[in-house]
Amino acid sequence: MTYCLAILTRAGLIMAADSRTNAGVDFVSTAQKLFDFSIPGERAIFICNAGNLSMTQNILMLVNRDLKTQASINIHTLPTLYDVAKYIGRLTRQVIEENQEWLKKDGISTSCSFLLGGQIKGEAPELYMIYSQGNFLRATKETPYFQIGEIKYGKPILDRVINYEYTSLEEAAKCALLSIDSTMKSNISVGPPINIVLYESDSLVVSHRRKLSKGDPYLENIRRSWEESVKRSFKDLPGLSWDLDPSIPEAENWLAPGSVYTN
Amino acid sequence: MTYCLAILTRAGLIMAADSRTNAGVDFVSTAQKLFDFSIPGERAIFICNAGNLSMTQNILMLVNRDLKTQASINIHTLPTLYDVAKYIGRLTRQVIEENQEWLKKDGISTSCSFLLGGQIKGEAPELYMIYSQGNFLRATKETPYFQIGEIKYGKPILDRVINYEYTSLEEAAKCALLSIDSTMKSNISVGPPINIVLYESDSLVVSHRRKLSKGDPYLENIRRSWEESVKRSFKDLPGLSWDLDPSIPEAENWLAPGSVYTN
Repeated sequence: MTYCLAILTRAGLIMAADSRTNAGVDFVSTAQKLFDFSIPGERAIFICNAGNLSMTQNILMLVNRDLKTQASINIHTLPTLYDVAKYIGRLTRQVIEENQEWLKKDGISTSCSFLLGGQIKGEAPELYMIYSQGNFLRATKETPYFQIGEIKYGKPILDRVINYEYTSLEEAAKCALLSIDSTMKSNISVGPPINIVLYESDSLVVSHRRKLSKGDPYLENIRRSWEESVKRSFKDLPGLSWDLDPSIPEAENWLAPGSVYTN
Repeated sequence: MTYCLAILTRAGLIMAADSRTNAGVDFVSTAQKLFDFSIPGERAIFICNAGNLSMTQNILMLVNRDLKTQASINIHTLPTLYDVAKYIGRLTRQVIEENQEWLKKDGISTSCSFLLGGQIKGEAPELYMIYSQGNFLRATKETPYFQIGEIKYGKPILDRVINYEYTSLEEAAKCALLSIDSTMKSNISVGPPINIVLYESDSLVVSHRRKLSKGDPYLENIRRSWEESVKRSFKDLPGLSWDLDPSIPEAENWLAPGSVYTN
């Protein structure tokens, strides 16, 4: 499994990914899942991938081959991020088409997905999520973040914190790492090192990047602090009163004893 | 979708369930998913169900029919909860067997699951999770809670709080409701009313039960308090330092710019 996420705010973009990959519990390995295709000063482009690694590697190898052979259409010539999203969607369709029949025979999924974020000179910063089927979504002010892979454990903190207008990039980075840490705690198939980039709108260069390895003091610190806060907050919550609400008819107040089917 | 959970501690048992049911977004309805089959003083038996409602209803109707017709084997005559788990597993296999072929034709899943908790006089309190296939798991000191349905959003708080030896039943009830509330916030297919029962070990009667409807002041209170605590705790967490760790080789510190495939 994998967990990648990207957050777009007025101030810029955060993209982060874990590095665990596995094909069954007995083949667990490490693979980079956040890639930087930027040309400083001209375009900032970051890609994260999730899903079948042989598909996503194949697709990114084609992206690189087009770059190396200076194909007329490549990730450095396309004029907008929208075009880049379409291009990756097209390569995804091509690679899946080539492999699907053979993987299906053995019940193996070809499913994969990408996050594509960045900015091309003259354009606004953008964030896309590209599906296995080659179609894609674009982040908006109302939906300023995307996740791919094992998304559920890390979603509640994003829903509570992230706001396109008001969240600073430092806060978004902290939230992204907390979201990844919660996921690592609940699912062993997501693991370090964690790669993270911070991109400031209109800078056209990577502002910050970090690779946080297993045992990184910052990760350990936020995990411990967060656990302590959660436990303290939980203790402070009021307990449930089991008293019935007199304003509600008694049958409404109670779980009917016996099954509803018995009467 | 559905979310049910049950927590077994040394002090007793908490079982709770939401009541939302849906077949597509245009057929959303309410269904009770926590049932009480107790005989006060002799046996306390609670069942929660998740998955295909036509399967789970059918299975529970058979449980009730056996009770009504006073079949020699029924939920009130079986001597242990282990036997009750086996009995429900057998009925599950029977109902799925009858329907599977027809539902498969239209790509509809027959998948369903149950939580079975309680105590029979002379036995210890127990908790089981019964799968679609009729097999089942029993809760242990190391794994003192089970969830069925939409389980991921509400799991982190359980992992952080629940302990078989030390968690009181009041704390377990609070944790169960918080877990359900987090799930409702992130997934609209889980919704009120929420039914919850509290059973104290060796009492052989239901100690407390509550039905919390939409807008219940306690639910609103813990949601608001929890959100405020989470936001405050998040603010208090230290920010990520982007400085490199001098003890680590530079290549290790940084996300390699450009794709790994370019070199």
